[in-house]
Amino acid sequence: MNLERLEKQMSFLREIEKLKLVYRRNSVLDRSRQENSAEHSWHIALMALVLAEHADEEDIDISKVVRQLLVHDLVEIYAGDTWLYDEAAMADKEEKERASAQELFALLPSDQAEEFQMLWEEFETRKSPEAKFAAAVDAIQPLINFLQVGAADYGNPPPARSLVLKSKAIIKEGSEKLWDLAQKTIDECVKRGLYANA
Amino acid sequence: MNLERLEKQMSFLREIEKLKLVYRRNSVLDRSRQENSAEHSWHIALMALVLAEHADEEDIDISKVVRQLLVHDLVEIYAGDTWLYDEAAMADKEEKERASAQELFALLPSDQAEEFQMLWEEFETRKSPEAKFAAAVDAIQPLINFLQVGAADYGNPPPARSLVLKSKAIIKEGSEKLWDLAQKTIDECVKRGLYANA
Repeated sequence: MNLERLEKQMSFLREIEKLKLVYRRNSVLDRSRQENSAEHSWHIALMALVLAEHADEEDIDISKVVRQLLVHDLVEIYAGDTWLYDEAAMADKEEKERASAQELFALLPSDQAEEFQMLWEEFETRKSPEAKFAAAVDAIQPLINFLQVGAADYGNPPPARSLVLKSKAIIKEGSEKLWDLAQKTIDECVKRGLYANA
Repeated sequence: MNLERLEKQMSFLREIEKLKLVYRRNSVLDRSRQENSAEHSWHIALMALVLAEHADEEDIDISKVVRQLLVHDLVEIYAGDTWLYDEAAMADKEEKERASAQELFALLPSDQAEEFQMLWEEFETRKSPEAKFAAAVDAIQPLINFLQVGAADYGNPPPARSLVLKSKAIIKEGSEKLWDLAQKTIDECVKRGLYANA
């Protein structure tokens, strides 16, 4: 066994413990705490498995979708989670996340660092059918959760329906069916006062 | 689109929100709370991807390992997490988890219910090389976490080295290399007083 190789892999796997402490805006079911990016990643990986048949593109490599989803939020370990509706913070999100990816993946043996970097790049740029579907699943999960759980202090004022629709339009690139579901979910959130009707 | 089919899938995907509220014995890095089974599942899925080359069996289908790991703890939604060193609770663990699997997977369309049930069964019975490696990864993650984070109130008295070795021996079935790492990790935990030297 190449001990140095295993040691590098383990240092990466210990470092990613930190993703469990990156909290998002949404809440868990009993509202006792905010959802973190590690459990969010688990949820969307399972969503991708269950909803695979609704991808627009047939013959999608769903195992690659899952790998992208397991990896995609790791960059938040150093960059933090950016709330989709915080337009100021969204402006330099990409730059911060790129630096974070480079720092984190460098812990791995170089072939795996490259593999993870490519997975993350592909997800970010949404150039493949797999990345488009992965991005759709990543974008719809918080809507589903938000309608289910709500959040007392989500935003004050709450985000406007038009901003949510614009921010979530990437769902349409990966799945017309999930985009249909997303729009219905957004409308229901508006009805319940979770988003502003504007 | 078959709306009923999507509705079943979504009811399953909403139900599994609950796994984020199933807490395990181990803690997150800053010890602010216990680790939950959803984020644990994410962590081991990534571990499997990174450590795949250390599986004893060559040509393992790592995407199946990942699917098993994403699914394997869902049964805790109704059955709860059972601490490995709680011998009384471990006695009826299998029965409770089997009932839980049946109830939960029944939310899915029947073809997917069957697929998930098979993944879970295969993981539980450890009859394939994939399941053996998945079980090894599932068993080593808490050891790595425990050495890294510790836990003030883990057990009183702490579990004995001999019990830990016996309970973790399944790692050997999937990966000699990870078993070697596990033994070293256990020894280090004993040195730090996290397990009793008995």
